[in-house]
Amino acid sequence: MLNFELYNPTNYVFGKEQITKLTDLVPKNTKILLAYGGGSIFKNGIYDQVKTALSGFEIVEFGGIEPNPRYETLMNAVEIIRAQNIGFILAVGGGSVIDGVKFISAAVKFEGNPMEILKKRMSIKDISQVIPFGTVLTLPATGSEMNSGSVITINETQEKLAFGGSALFPKFSICDPTVIESLPKRQIQNGVVDAFTHVMEQYLTYTHDALLQDRIAESILQTLVEIGPSVVENPTDYKLASNYMWCATMALNGLLNKGVPTDWATHMIGHELTALYEIDHARSLAIIGPNLYRVMFDTKKDKLAQYGERVFGIQGNSVEEKAEKAIEKTVDFLHKMGMLTKLSENTANYENTADFIVARFEERGWKGLGEQQNVTPEKVREIVEMSY
Amino acid sequence: MLNFELYNPTNYVFGKEQITKLTDLVPKNTKILLAYGGGSIFKNGIYDQVKTALSGFEIVEFGGIEPNPRYETLMNAVEIIRAQNIGFILAVGGGSVIDGVKFISAAVKFEGNPMEILKKRMSIKDISQVIPFGTVLTLPATGSEMNSGSVITINETQEKLAFGGSALFPKFSICDPTVIESLPKRQIQNGVVDAFTHVMEQYLTYTHDALLQDRIAESILQTLVEIGPSVVENPTDYKLASNYMWCATMALNGLLNKGVPTDWATHMIGHELTALYEIDHARSLAIIGPNLYRVMFDTKKDKLAQYGERVFGIQGNSVEEKAEKAIEKTVDFLHKMGMLTKLSENTANYENTADFIVARFEERGWKGLGEQQNVTPEKVREIVEMSY
Repeated sequence: MLNFELYNPTNYVFGKEQITKLTDLVPKNTKILLAYGGGSIFKNGIYDQVKTALSGFEIVEFGGIEPNPRYETLMNAVEIIRAQNIGFILAVGGGSVIDGVKFISAAVKFEGNPMEILKKRMSIKDISQVIPFGTVLTLPATGSEMNSGSVITINETQEKLAFGGSALFPKFSICDPTVIESLPKRQIQNGVVDAFTHVMEQYLTYTHDALLQDRIAESILQTLVEIGPSVVENPTDYKLASNYMWCATMALNGLLNKGVPTDWATHMIGHELTALYEIDHARSLAIIGPNLYRVMFDTKKDKLAQYGERVFGIQGNSVEEKAEKAIEKTVDFLHKMGMLTKLSENTANYENTADFIVARFEERGWKGLGEQQNVTPEKVREIVEMSY
Repeated sequence: MLNFELYNPTNYVFGKEQITKLTDLVPKNTKILLAYGGGSIFKNGIYDQVKTALSGFEIVEFGGIEPNPRYETLMNAVEIIRAQNIGFILAVGGGSVIDGVKFISAAVKFEGNPMEILKKRMSIKDISQVIPFGTVLTLPATGSEMNSGSVITINETQEKLAFGGSALFPKFSICDPTVIESLPKRQIQNGVVDAFTHVMEQYLTYTHDALLQDRIAESILQTLVEIGPSVVENPTDYKLASNYMWCATMALNGLLNKGVPTDWATHMIGHELTALYEIDHARSLAIIGPNLYRVMFDTKKDKLAQYGERVFGIQGNSVEEKAEKAIEKTVDFLHKMGMLTKLSENTANYENTADFIVARFEERGWKGLGEQQNVTPEKVREIVEMSY
């Protein structure tokens, strides 16, 4: 097992009717910025629940944080906080709103141009330099409600940049699974596949001796496979919804990657498909993941076989056979989750995608991605072309 | 899934040669109480490693915290801290030393008689009212390194009382699996069984819809079953030692019980065996656990069958058959771990044990223990007599 540090001070508040606890969770005598996205919280009743819980508090609202939140939008909130002496931020939304609030939190007291936080991929560790924030999660997917990472897009340069740091854990996150009832099917499909792929990135590497970590990862994968297709059809089923929400948090709250190698190449390639064709993040992962496993078969086959046996109950006469079946089962699952796993099914003009992505990676000097840094530009080309 | 809150701010630092990080983890310019137990840290080199990492810091030592730490002993440390203006405590030891330090931490600033903390089973939530502390774990078993609970014995009245609260999480815990190399076999056996039973208390209840929680619990059980007997024989094998240490923490760091019913009746009965006959805590659990499953078979059989299938790969024609086999497999495992699962194998004068324990529970007004409060005094009698 590799050495690791596990630190996660977020107070995670899970269950029905937990939004009422906001009254006790937000600080008293502090002006609060209520940050949200495109307005779905007005339709599903979350806005009303939040406002009721916060009656008596001084609140300034900031709506309109977009999917793939933009630096330019967020800087407007930074100005409001500075001008109005706001001391706490409440993010009400999904991963985009929460990621956006993490940037706002870090930017307010930043000395210099806050764009540097992104350009230099800074790690914000000093609690005294951020505005504290909490979250009310409305869309389970990214795990941002219980981690300290964030991805922000700079509109001007069309760059999608990550930053984070231990000062950027939410103080609290309220996760009420009933929010899933009113989500569009497509968002539930995406959320399950996003969570599933988060686990795979931290698990599907090579066989190692962190026995418990593997089994916890497999626990989340098994649960998502078990409930994923059903929760899309029955989002009012609390058993399904609660397991989905908890799995999505556990998939990326910093527990799974402790002591083990991680991959993340599927995300690196998938991000480019989103940038090029505005393919939903989760759908880009569903296109790339299985083909990455195929192209990197030699280095991943042992783990694929373990995954196949333990998650899908696959049997076979050889590691190769079990590993191949495991990839097929993964694609089956993605199809059941409504994913279209070919690039050509998601966009019309895909012919030059591999050239473009490989050129971009080479520009950045990326010689090899993945847990063994062996997903070379040539392998990336093969993966992307296999995805057409 | 039941509503829950998950909060755990301990910075958990795991791996080889991590004790050197103490230099950065303890606060600067603060006098430190270095608390430890009977002196094993002098033999295994931990004391030297700690002192080296803390060279330049002002340290006051307090040794002699005993197994089942005593209120009377700990109050001596409280006096030292008050007299010498000490601002941080470093617990170097196993669960007893860490539990003891939690009490010291809570008692120093307590207004009134600190014995009330125990007698009233207080929940200490106010960070400003405790002395912060960190730990260096030398014996994986209790999970105290990453939770906020503590059990203290009052010598005068021979009471073993629990308290805790969110202010009593360690600031950090350094867990280096190489400490296991020098542990006596009996302590490793006990540590594995203690961790195993912690999981069972939070898992082996009734079937419910918290799918992921069940699987995480099973992950720890599977791992302990896989490595437990081997780590006793090969404590220098880092793969075995690191998985054991990480499982012991995860077994009781507050994750497993989220959203699920919990039992703890085995502990309640086992505690009495320890009080009566000084049977090691883990060994008392090994005596009681399987007989509790037998006596409570009707309410636990579905979960026992699930446990048998998933942890031991048991197959059978009925729930009852699988559940019975699961109990047998559990006893087999406990035997492999060096446990003697009959009371008569652990003490000579056991004939009146059931009478005594039932009388004690009735004195306390305990009408029913366990996840369904249906382990009545009559059932307790049956369980204890079955354990003879």
